[in-house]
Amino acid sequence: MEKIGRYSFEQYLEVIKSFHGSESPGLVLGGIMVDYALGQMEPGVLFDAICETSSCLPDAIQLLTPCTIGNGWLKVIDLGRFALSLYDKYRGEGVRVFVDGGKLNGWEEIWNWFYKLKTKREQDKDLLLAQIREAGCAILSAGPVRIDPRYLGKTSKGAIANCPGCGEPYPQKDGALCLGCSGQSPYEQMTELTG
Amino acid sequence: MEKIGRYSFEQYLEVIKSFHGSESPGLVLGGIMVDYALGQMEPGVLFDAICETSSCLPDAIQLLTPCTIGNGWLKVIDLGRFALSLYDKYRGEGVRVFVDGGKLNGWEEIWNWFYKLKTKREQDKDLLLAQIREAGCAILSAGPVRIDPRYLGKTSKGAIANCPGCGEPYPQKDGALCLGCSGQSPYEQMTELTG
Repeated sequence: MEKIGRYSFEQYLEVIKSFHGSESPGLVLGGIMVDYALGQMEPGVLFDAICETSSCLPDAIQLLTPCTIGNGWLKVIDLGRFALSLYDKYRGEGVRVFVDGGKLNGWEEIWNWFYKLKTKREQDKDLLLAQIREAGCAILSAGPVRIDPRYLGKTSKGAIANCPGCGEPYPQKDGALCLGCSGQSPYEQMTELTG
Repeated sequence: MEKIGRYSFEQYLEVIKSFHGSESPGLVLGGIMVDYALGQMEPGVLFDAICETSSCLPDAIQLLTPCTIGNGWLKVIDLGRFALSLYDKYRGEGVRVFVDGGKLNGWEEIWNWFYKLKTKREQDKDLLLAQIREAGCAILSAGPVRIDPRYLGKTSKGAIANCPGCGEPYPQKDGALCLGCSGQSPYEQMTELTG
């Protein structure tokens, strides 16, 4: 691989280091996957993305496509598979790219990393990155997909009210209390308001 | 507000347009919130983030802190509240910042937008952005939080095997089949492998 998206390979390493915090092998591989998927899309199609893992790959999608978590065009549905789909936002037809275990023979450092047969300390990171770069799309497979219609389009939050529990604005359709006050809060303690 | 993070207000508008696709009011407000939360953190603390909405705010966190979806330092727990927390990665103590409905009086365009009393077409976007910029932290509140320990640390995926259903690598702890083959796939159709 000489290029990933509009970046040279070296530029891409800089970009991911700045955004993600490290030259993560998963994000390098992810960049190659996104690039491959983009190449299979009809030009001009407005697309959304589904990422089947929360590890690394979502950041490649966010850096190389218009799809982000915050704009809603990227959804993470964590199925534990290192795979992504790009698909027509309205029709749901698109392409899915995944790491093909059957193609990893001969790429020993990738194999050991991907199947977690070596600890991070045992890995040779330079060799791993070199193999990922050299392998490129050769360890990927792709196929057409059609997305279930329930994942298409945006669902409106509907009317907003103040929660009688915490007093904060929330979507009324969530019930008499906001989801935080209904037991889904990730906090043990939330007190002493200031500011 | 003159600055958001290390950006001037105008630079920040450019950054969010490039990443998120538009000068979204939610992302402008989100930037102010993240900046406010960062100012409350002890210097040098390694922190993670929780975002209580999937709309806009996650992108402000990803752009202004080291926390991203793909590196696992940002978790989105969609409670429908426009709020975020930054907290010590190991101890779970941190700060939560939210939009305080009680402080929105007098900021009519923000009020109408935040409580969805005007359609997008009816909104005066320039006025809305000007009010968000002028209001700054005056419409926010903050307080200390302690995160439930189950949200601290990374959970290992454990051993990886090939799924007997789709043949793709997946975390064995998910069961005899991967979650995609166990009925959680977002695809209606996934066929004709190529590549």
